[in-house]
Amino acid sequence: MARYVDLNSDLGESFGAYTLGLDRDVLRHISSANIACGCHAGDPMVMAKTVGLAQELGVSIGAHPGFPDLVGFGRRKMALSPVEVKNYIIYQVGALAAFAAAANTKLQHVKPHGALYNMAAVDPKFAIAIAEGIAEVNTELIFVGLAGSEMIKAGQQAGLRVASEVFADRGYNSDGTLIARGQPGAMIHDPEEAAVRVVKMVAKGTIMSAGGQEIAICADTVCLHGDSPGAVEMAQTIRKRLEEAGIKISPLGGEIS
Amino acid sequence: MARYVDLNSDLGESFGAYTLGLDRDVLRHISSANIACGCHAGDPMVMAKTVGLAQELGVSIGAHPGFPDLVGFGRRKMALSPVEVKNYIIYQVGALAAFAAAANTKLQHVKPHGALYNMAAVDPKFAIAIAEGIAEVNTELIFVGLAGSEMIKAGQQAGLRVASEVFADRGYNSDGTLIARGQPGAMIHDPEEAAVRVVKMVAKGTIMSAGGQEIAICADTVCLHGDSPGAVEMAQTIRKRLEEAGIKISPLGGEIS
Amino acid sequence: MARYVDLNSDLGESFGAYTLGLDRDVLRHISSANIACGCHAGDPMVMAKTVGLAQELGVSIGAHPGFPDLVGFGRRKMALSPVEVKNYIIYQVGALAAFAAAANTKLQHVKPHGALYNMAAVDPKFAIAIAEGIAEVNTELIFVGLAGSEMIKAGQQAGLRVASEVFADRGYNSDGTLIARGQPGAMIHDPEEAAVRVVKMVAKGTIMSAGGQEIAICADTVCLHGDSPGAVEMAQTIRKRLEEAGIKISPLGGEIS
Amino acid sequence: MARYVDLNSDLGESFGAYTLGLDRDVLRHISSANIACGCHAGDPMVMAKTVGLAQELGVSIGAHPGFPDLVGFGRRKMALSPVEVKNYIIYQVGALAAFAAAANTKLQHVKPHGALYNMAAVDPKFAIAIAEGIAEVNTELIFVGLAGSEMIKAGQQAGLRVASEVFADRGYNSDGTLIARGQPGAMIHDPEEAAVRVVKMVAKGTIMSAGGQEIAICADTVCLHGDSPGAVEMAQTIRKRLEEAGIKISPLGGEIS
Repeated sequence: MARYVDLNSDLGESFGAYTLGLDRDVLRHISSANIACGCHAGDPMVMAKTVGLAQELGVSIGAHPGFPDLVGFGRRKMALSPVEVKNYIIYQVGALAAFAAAANTKLQHVKPHGALYNMAAVDPKFAIAIAEGIAEVNTELIFVGLAGSEMIKAGQQAGLRVASEVFADRGYNSDGTLIARGQPGAMIHDPEEAAVRVVKMVAKGTIMSAGGQEIAICADTVCLHGDSPGAVEMAQTIRKRLEEAGIKISPLGGEIS
Repeated sequence: MARYVDLNSDLGESFGAYTLGLDRDVLRHISSANIACGCHAGDPMVMAKTVGLAQELGVSIGAHPGFPDLVGFGRRKMALSPVEVKNYIIYQVGALAAFAAAANTKLQHVKPHGALYNMAAVDPKFAIAIAEGIAEVNTELIFVGLAGSEMIKAGQQAGLRVASEVFADRGYNSDGTLIARGQPGAMIHDPEEAAVRVVKMVAKGTIMSAGGQEIAICADTVCLHGDSPGAVEMAQTIRKRLEEAGIKISPLGGEIS
Repeated sequence: MARYVDLNSDLGESFGAYTLGLDRDVLRHISSANIACGCHAGDPMVMAKTVGLAQELGVSIGAHPGFPDLVGFGRRKMALSPVEVKNYIIYQVGALAAFAAAANTKLQHVKPHGALYNMAAVDPKFAIAIAEGIAEVNTELIFVGLAGSEMIKAGQQAGLRVASEVFADRGYNSDGTLIARGQPGAMIHDPEEAAVRVVKMVAKGTIMSAGGQEIAICADTVCLHGDSPGAVEMAQTIRKRLEEAGIKISPLGGEIS
Repeated sequence: MARYVDLNSDLGESFGAYTLGLDRDVLRHISSANIACGCHAGDPMVMAKTVGLAQELGVSIGAHPGFPDLVGFGRRKMALSPVEVKNYIIYQVGALAAFAAAANTKLQHVKPHGALYNMAAVDPKFAIAIAEGIAEVNTELIFVGLAGSEMIKAGQQAGLRVASEVFADRGYNSDGTLIARGQPGAMIHDPEEAAVRVVKMVAKGTIMSAGGQEIAICADTVCLHGDSPGAVEMAQTIRKRLEEAGIKISPLGGEIS
């Protein structure tokens, strides 16, 4: 039984005059922050501020690179070539690493965002491109990707430490993939239900699929959200239930095998 | 008499489908490359390619950060706050540093671009913001700025190594500032005349002003251009004349006092 | 005594995933909407939606062009040339006019945004460039500018109808200019006080300056805000007090002399 | 036998400091210019200049809207929704129409660019979205699309005049689609061979496919290029051979059935 788990959230998604996300609130409940790097969201001012906030609250810092599609928030598939993907990873990881250095800290991990994450989960070419980009910048960085996906394989093959991500608020198919948004069972709305599922994923390494099967899942880190008061409440509940179950919330650094 | 000088040029200014500059040609004549970082010019693909090309030809690599104004090529004054300037420096230096790391090399220097360079030459707040941004990312980086300008002062005060830049193709006022473009005497077009002036700046530490005064100038590095065949020819001529005068062309790393 | 006044507000300033402004709320209190055009804010989806919303609520539509500086929200001075300013006006007015055409309506006016507005208020070259841009697209468009500013003069010289804008929530200097933000007396926070001032500006054509002088001011249109619940409440109060004073709220179209 | 044909070329693809295409040269050989609208290429300065140049040389003006992907030059597939596509069409057509109005002329046509063109050729949802966007702005505009593609059908269904486009320098499959770039026979490099093919397409309405079949094709307009001296030479040759064959080069306006 796992005694540790990381809780992560996507932060620093504001841009210029535009504010998005309750960053300060959700930071109180998580151990790792995925910070946008100025392509799909974020800008240098937001990055500096978010790195400072994470550091102030003792949360580990990671890069959250996405497609160069600000107006689409990185959520639209784009037909980049693998070498374009690799270079966009290098660019964004480097930019955020500089803000970490400016704050006398270091990046812990890299987690792709949005459509880039979804495409890399199933496309080995994208997954390998991301892994290579990370490894070329810094082989110490942990590659966070969807549990059981191409990203985990690509990270391992590239010699990177990897962290398998699970989602507290999403339903799973029997093959371990996420139920597509818009389909029945895709979203878990009740904080207590989500917390029970997360505790089970972490403690037992299994999750009940929509089809009623108990399937194996590796849960190194759990994705939480901070984009609404309800999301923050869910994050708080999940953290509390994990701690009550004797599971320590801990950033990825020391605990990944 | 100086026995060494650095020759630098602004490179990697292509963007997407747009090609700008004869990078490969001018790289054969210089010792330091200032590479655009994706704000006023350049993109991740161009940055990767340009770092690779500089490395292949044994040219030291530096960041050339500019204003976030692609359509204006960073040449238009923008009223950024000093903290915005600092964070745009951190962002761009970090992004390029990652491409250097990916190529198993390191950044040597940072030279601001265009309107940012011009504004920082005379505005201590901008100059200090740039120096702080550089120092926060990496205190080993050399700050390249206009000889005698606020940038040199700010770099020194921030504890950075600095390199004073002179221009081979520009006329100087008697106070050591550049003659504004469009004014008589602003541009030196003849390669041989430019070369004579450069050799004198490096060897004697003086330059003849437009008013006919011989003024003192510190020439750690000479800015050359690669945006036209004529510019590349001028670069070649200047290098040749410097070498004939017994002056070694050498990157900034070891030679700056 | 004026029997009519226009109430305007800056709308459509959301962008992609980012929402800004209580557009639907403030639209209930105004007669003219200044809609962002995709440079400093807004995007094609937001423009289509905002035009539709204004039309649904019977509010006249105008373009609100700004500098091409999304991350700075068009609030930072940029050193564009006059011809650049003119062409950015043409571009943005044309883009919004197409959404108006798609909704079977027409643009009523053009009001510059942010730093472009502020620069054009005092710089005849910018003011003339804007007026020319508007006139080249459509001479029927009304140029909305700061009362007493260079924009009003430039619009008149270009043969355009002009509308003089006053601000409900701002203090005025004795020369009719706005007290700079951050200075004492710059902002009027109390809705009732703002309403009293607006009624006087419209009914009597005067405003009490910070120095205690009653100065003449032309108030064809009053700028209200919708960026917070408090701003919407102020808009509502001002409209109510104007109507109680027997002043009709009416878009610019028919009433400008 | 057709007595008329339009020759079109993609122009105004420069951006800021970046120059692309020999616009002035190719304009001498064509009758319709497809002008980039600031999303995948072009900017307000370039648009103004290109409209002026086309007008000076008596070439009809059309909009060439593309994906909002400047760094990818609009050549990368992007998963926009149909309503996003429609609104990006409205935005870009409107922006260019304003430059036409400023030059006292009008838009003749709209031809989608790059990946948007390719996706709309085969995807009815995209094709319909484009047709609706055009029709909502101005039902007089001619929709230029790949001969035999979904774009032609969608334009007709939307009640628009359509123009079927053929390519002088591309090989065709037996089903009338273009041979994919990179495949054998995809490109025709010889100007005379291209000219012979074009004359046949226009005069006889047929083209020899790569498989050796003579297939029917509707050639209202022929796409030529101006991105290299060789391309301009091919344009010149094709025009000459068409005229020698008694076919008049004429913009789309009056001749489309």
